[in-house]
Amino acid sequence: MARKAPRRTAERILEVSLALFNRFGEPHVSTAAIAAELGISSGNLYYHYRAKDDIVNALFAQYELALSGLLQAGGDAADVEDAWFFMHRLFELIWQYRFLYRDLNNLLSRNRLLETQFPGVLQAKVGAMRELLAAMRRGDALRMEHDDDAQAVATCMVVVLTYWLCFEYVGDPRRAMEPESAQAALLRGAQHVLGLLMPYLEPAQRAHLARLAQAYADVER
Amino acid sequence: MARKAPRRTAERILEVSLALFNRFGEPHVSTAAIAAELGISSGNLYYHYRAKDDIVNALFAQYELALSGLLQAGGDAADVEDAWFFMHRLFELIWQYRFLYRDLNNLLSRNRLLETQFPGVLQAKVGAMRELLAAMRRGDALRMEHDDDAQAVATCMVVVLTYWLCFEYVGDPRRAMEPESAQAALLRGAQHVLGLLMPYLEPAQRAHLARLAQAYADVER
Repeated sequence: MARKAPRRTAERILEVSLALFNRFGEPHVSTAAIAAELGISSGNLYYHYRAKDDIVNALFAQYELALSGLLQAGGDAADVEDAWFFMHRLFELIWQYRFLYRDLNNLLSRNRLLETQFPGVLQAKVGAMRELLAAMRRGDALRMEHDDDAQAVATCMVVVLTYWLCFEYVGDPRRAMEPESAQAALLRGAQHVLGLLMPYLEPAQRAHLARLAQAYADVER
Repeated sequence: MARKAPRRTAERILEVSLALFNRFGEPHVSTAAIAAELGISSGNLYYHYRAKDDIVNALFAQYELALSGLLQAGGDAADVEDAWFFMHRLFELIWQYRFLYRDLNNLLSRNRLLETQFPGVLQAKVGAMRELLAAMRRGDALRMEHDDDAQAVATCMVVVLTYWLCFEYVGDPRRAMEPESAQAALLRGAQHVLGLLMPYLEPAQRAHLARLAQAYADVER
């Protein structure tokens, strides 16, 4: 009987590290704990990654690649339904790599690659939100009389997007980062980011966004 | 010639700890470093505070007291000028105790008092923003057709208020937390939090807020 070939060790190291970092926070996970979880020797781990920061950097590269692909879609959102799914996919990606956001300041103060790359991540997000606003204006879903508002709104969308999980964490530190809390937390996050568009939406679009939020809230209960 | 009596040691410990925590981040400052900075023995420090967490808790109590006094003023803001000064005072207080926000998740995971008290801090802030919105509606400075918007807007104001300095930090980790960056960072923060009100403001109020922002930006340059 044919069996799947065992996945390559380097890949499994990243997968297990991501799970442990997300669960316990990156500062609390040692390379020894990662090796133990995988049932491999520290020497074997060291052969693939010389230091924990190399693992963090590889995970960040995965995240950045997935994010930049996803952000492209911002410019295709012609109405609130497109925007709704776009925001949910963004929140799901952030959840998948939530360790980066949970201890971001700490990581930035210790890791030179992240320090140099993360400003670009935030700028790319602001750019994608501006594209989203422009696309929705072209699609007559949204009216913004003052052009100055676009940059400020896009920036606030990114602040709420980036720190929503931290905000949830402060409200309930023991449970907010656990998988069973994910769906509800991500839903609230997406609603609040899109809620920033509410005063600018055309009435029909506004009603549609409220219906989407309600439908998802009902499924959640 | 009369000289001021030396301030009590306990008070000086708090003052020096706050400065060091803000500068280097609380996780990177030991009680030994605090004692050395004060030129006192570790035994003397220990006599006043048994552990670093006792110092953190005392500073948090100071912060919470100042904050709750300040938040009262939210309900007195009848126009954008009141709101502007209210927001600046809030940002100045957060700046004064910025170590709490810089490593918040880390602090919450280690310190039981902060874990139990911080959710209340965020709730109090959301409550104050709702009071602010209500006061401005009473003062005809702001029009909000949909009552549902108030809770969402107040929540987003608190997310932006709470995480603005973190957002600045990510953009420029080496400089954002230094005192010479403070004024510009706090100004941008206050503008973005109040910017969330823009689409709801009466035209004259909107113009007044833009003038205030411009005047302060000119002073800053």
